[in-house]
Amino acid sequence: MSWSLTVALGARAYPIHIGSGLLSDPDLYRPHLLGSQVMVVTNETVAPLYLEAVRSALEGYQVGEVVLPDGEQYKTMEVWNRIFDALLQARFGRDCTLVALGGGVVGDMAGFAAACYQRGVGFIQVPTTLLAQVDSSVGGKTGINHPAGKNMIGAFHQPRAVIADTSTLATLPQRELSAGLAEVLKYGLIRDATFLSWLETHMAELLARDADALAYIIRRSCEIKAEIVAEDELEAGQRALLNLGHTFGHAIETATGYGTWLHGEAVGVGICMAADLSARMGWLTDVDVERVRRLVASAGLPVAAPNDLSADRFLELMAVDKKVQDGRLRLVLLQQPGDALVTGDVDPNLLRATLDAAAS
Amino acid sequence: MSWSLTVALGARAYPIHIGSGLLSDPDLYRPHLLGSQVMVVTNETVAPLYLEAVRSALEGYQVGEVVLPDGEQYKTMEVWNRIFDALLQARFGRDCTLVALGGGVVGDMAGFAAACYQRGVGFIQVPTTLLAQVDSSVGGKTGINHPAGKNMIGAFHQPRAVIADTSTLATLPQRELSAGLAEVLKYGLIRDATFLSWLETHMAELLARDADALAYIIRRSCEIKAEIVAEDELEAGQRALLNLGHTFGHAIETATGYGTWLHGEAVGVGICMAADLSARMGWLTDVDVERVRRLVASAGLPVAAPNDLSADRFLELMAVDKKVQDGRLRLVLLQQPGDALVTGDVDPNLLRATLDAAAS
Repeated sequence: MSWSLTVALGARAYPIHIGSGLLSDPDLYRPHLLGSQVMVVTNETVAPLYLEAVRSALEGYQVGEVVLPDGEQYKTMEVWNRIFDALLQARFGRDCTLVALGGGVVGDMAGFAAACYQRGVGFIQVPTTLLAQVDSSVGGKTGINHPAGKNMIGAFHQPRAVIADTSTLATLPQRELSAGLAEVLKYGLIRDATFLSWLETHMAELLARDADALAYIIRRSCEIKAEIVAEDELEAGQRALLNLGHTFGHAIETATGYGTWLHGEAVGVGICMAADLSARMGWLTDVDVERVRRLVASAGLPVAAPNDLSADRFLELMAVDKKVQDGRLRLVLLQQPGDALVTGDVDPNLLRATLDAAAS
Repeated sequence: MSWSLTVALGARAYPIHIGSGLLSDPDLYRPHLLGSQVMVVTNETVAPLYLEAVRSALEGYQVGEVVLPDGEQYKTMEVWNRIFDALLQARFGRDCTLVALGGGVVGDMAGFAAACYQRGVGFIQVPTTLLAQVDSSVGGKTGINHPAGKNMIGAFHQPRAVIADTSTLATLPQRELSAGLAEVLKYGLIRDATFLSWLETHMAELLARDADALAYIIRRSCEIKAEIVAEDELEAGQRALLNLGHTFGHAIETATGYGTWLHGEAVGVGICMAADLSARMGWLTDVDVERVRRLVASAGLPVAAPNDLSADRFLELMAVDKKVQDGRLRLVLLQQPGDALVTGDVDPNLLRATLDAAAS
């Protein structure tokens, strides 16, 4: 059983294929390969599991590979540069294609390398984590981290296709599964109260990796993301809603050192913080906030920021957020569960109260 | 006296202003600044000459500066990264603007940093060399070098404006003036036989820096470039003609170590080689080839490749050219002076004969 949906971006439209066993299907790659050269970018954890299957799907092409170290702490300029070393050593031309086989880190780095190699080549996302399948592989955000801020260097570069093979989730560590669920909860919270309720009643099946339940949330998440991205590719407006919890989360990731917290874990806490602040703004009830915290916790995610992360340090780190405009911080908050907004009009005292409360 | 032309790229259209004393005119910057933060990227040679004048034009804005070392050998990922360090240290947001004040190297690096900072911010080109004024500042090609190939990592990212202040040419070393003339000759050779004849008869005035003569060639060069870029922004076709001499030239620059030859010097030799090969293809006469060599030499440029650069090494370096398609080298050649074409159909023996002859 598999589904396909389309990210409707005119000349840059592309399919998302979701299903079991897809990554070894040659027919899903071929329509999107321009020339004969394909570079698979993956990491040390994923390569032993799935690289051969992808290689077999690419039989007949000139296939190279770059195996990067695994973890957010390697999403650096130095590691990114290894992709160019490999491409140039193999004499790959402007008609080559990159295949990102792995989680969000691999997808972000390979996508950004595709954006910049010879000023832009094609790439295909083959996400192997829940987080990448429901979120990072769709929408064309690519990039690397700078010591001073997450994803500060990057490009909008849409993939030619996304091939989400749900069977890869069988080998995913539980901690990574939970991290992916943070982004799934996000979709319910910003756009779909019905989906949110569904998640509440099916969390146990999801954590037990029920195949149908996982396939459903991946599909629904991709539908919502595809819809939002098609409306606002370059994040001039509504797309920013997809960053619910991310401004707080990025600050946690940067403060603790990339790779200490998983991105989804930091987003989980960030979502709780956004809910807390939304209540202080008078939009959510205390019951709503408690409901959000319970849901995040039930997904196996943390709900409190690190103890030693002070409000001042939070504010300092949040000041480099990409949503800052004219020096003013803008945050994604909830008007009610299932409905979010972006606001630059937050009382600093309320924000500070949320930051102070977060580490407790 | 000043002229303005427009690069007609729809929503990304922008003006090119050409004239004396323009870089200190606030009105040329203001319409193109989104927010209040401006980062001037320049180099150690240009900063003492023109940074204060640009700063004065930006009074009222929050202005930062990054002063890079001067030379093609510094167009590296490491040096490029310093721009991000400066932007993040100053907490610059997504609505900031970069100003590239300098020659082609500064413009390429600052433009590429603008393309990637927070996934894309605006930038203004303020070219201070002839080469940058007639060529590299217009058209949105940005990037950095990789040890294995020139401009292999980059992006198409159009500036919001080009401010070409012709008075900066007064301080330009003679060698840099000649290097810029290589790109000017290129425009005549690929598109405008009348302009080519004009250049032949006015070379002495140009080398003596006659202000009117220089202003004229900058204007005519920008007109031709703007026209070609507007037709083919991403180099799917005709824009490749602007690379006349560049495949050979890039090989020379990479082989000799970036910064040993100036880009324009390598292009000068490359143009002679392209003419030589065009004659071997039966398109140019020997008289045409001699005319091209004479013109290149009269601009104060070299006409022979380095002695120790063998045909085999040339071919190896040319194999990573961005115009390679399906492993096949494509070259810009001349059908006659004033008319060029791109061909992937060159007899390897004729190419080798040109490469063998080049170093003599």
